[in-house]
Amino acid sequence: MAAAKDKTLNDLFLDTLKDIYYAEKQILKALPKMAKAATSDKLRAAFEKHEGETEGQIDRLEQIFELLDKPARGKTCDAIMGILEEGKEIMSEYKGTEALDAGLLAAAQAVEHYEISRYGTLKTWAGLLGMKDAVKLLDQTLQQEKTTDGNLSKLAESEINYEAAA
Amino acid sequence: MAAAKDKTLNDLFLDTLKDIYYAEKQILKALPKMAKAATSDKLRAAFEKHEGETEGQIDRLEQIFELLDKPARGKTCDAIMGILEEGKEIMSEYKGTEALDAGLLAAAQAVEHYEISRYGTLKTWAGLLGMKDAVKLLDQTLQQEKTTDGNLSKLAESEINYEAAA
Repeated sequence: MAAAKDKTLNDLFLDTLKDIYYAEKQILKALPKMAKAATSDKLRAAFEKHEGETEGQIDRLEQIFELLDKPARGKTCDAIMGILEEGKEIMSEYKGTEALDAGLLAAAQAVEHYEISRYGTLKTWAGLLGMKDAVKLLDQTLQQEKTTDGNLSKLAESEINYEAAA
Repeated sequence: MAAAKDKTLNDLFLDTLKDIYYAEKQILKALPKMAKAATSDKLRAAFEKHEGETEGQIDRLEQIFELLDKPARGKTCDAIMGILEEGKEIMSEYKGTEALDAGLLAAAQAVEHYEISRYGTLKTWAGLLGMKDAVKLLDQTLQQEKTTDGNLSKLAESEINYEAAA
């Protein structure tokens, strides 16, 4: 670890990579629980699909650690802990209600937006640091997260919440 | 508070409104500290501008509480606590380094994305619940948050991080 005053964008990139690596592993643990809680088949399928994508995203992060010649290691990410905690509260407070799926969707979209922000930042920094291969890997995940968020938005605007509002 | 099984989308809307109301108040406290920490004049100006916008967003939330005939009251939001905690860590770990502004920008964008996700969700639910005035107010804030995030992205891709990477 560089001494405080000598820290550079390279250090910040690595710290943030560790942060999202930790976050992705927490998300991977949370997704099966969210899928199990969902009452809508479409929502459950969306969570199951994203579980597979998350495995691929973790693999891409490990490739970037390799490019940096650093061990793939996570760093506790307070943000994802808080976001997932809110999801757990929804699952507990709205269990058995008609609004549960709407709450699960909202929790999942908060997760997606955290990831979109982190991958956008990492991609920008990788570009500034001249890490072309990392830019490509980060962009693949970023586009995937945006697509997932868009799909969740479509679900949120359609039947899932209509059922809840009915 | 409705008994657990009877909870509806109306309850979820109100709970989430309280969550983002609490979050906005925390953000309003954090922004002057972030502005003070920033070394770039443009970044400091962006934080100061967003402080004013945040006051307007809080005012809009209070209008929605009024529409619902409910007292404007926050509910501890674990997500924003975690996101802001990460911002504080960056300020402390990167103080005095060339990468500080890049880290502040990343922290601010994580906040913006949390807000975008919450306002998007609330707007969708307000629509499903037939609350036209609330939809309008929530959309105003949502568009403002998206613009702020876009402006921060432009800063992140330009001089702020270039200075850090130089």
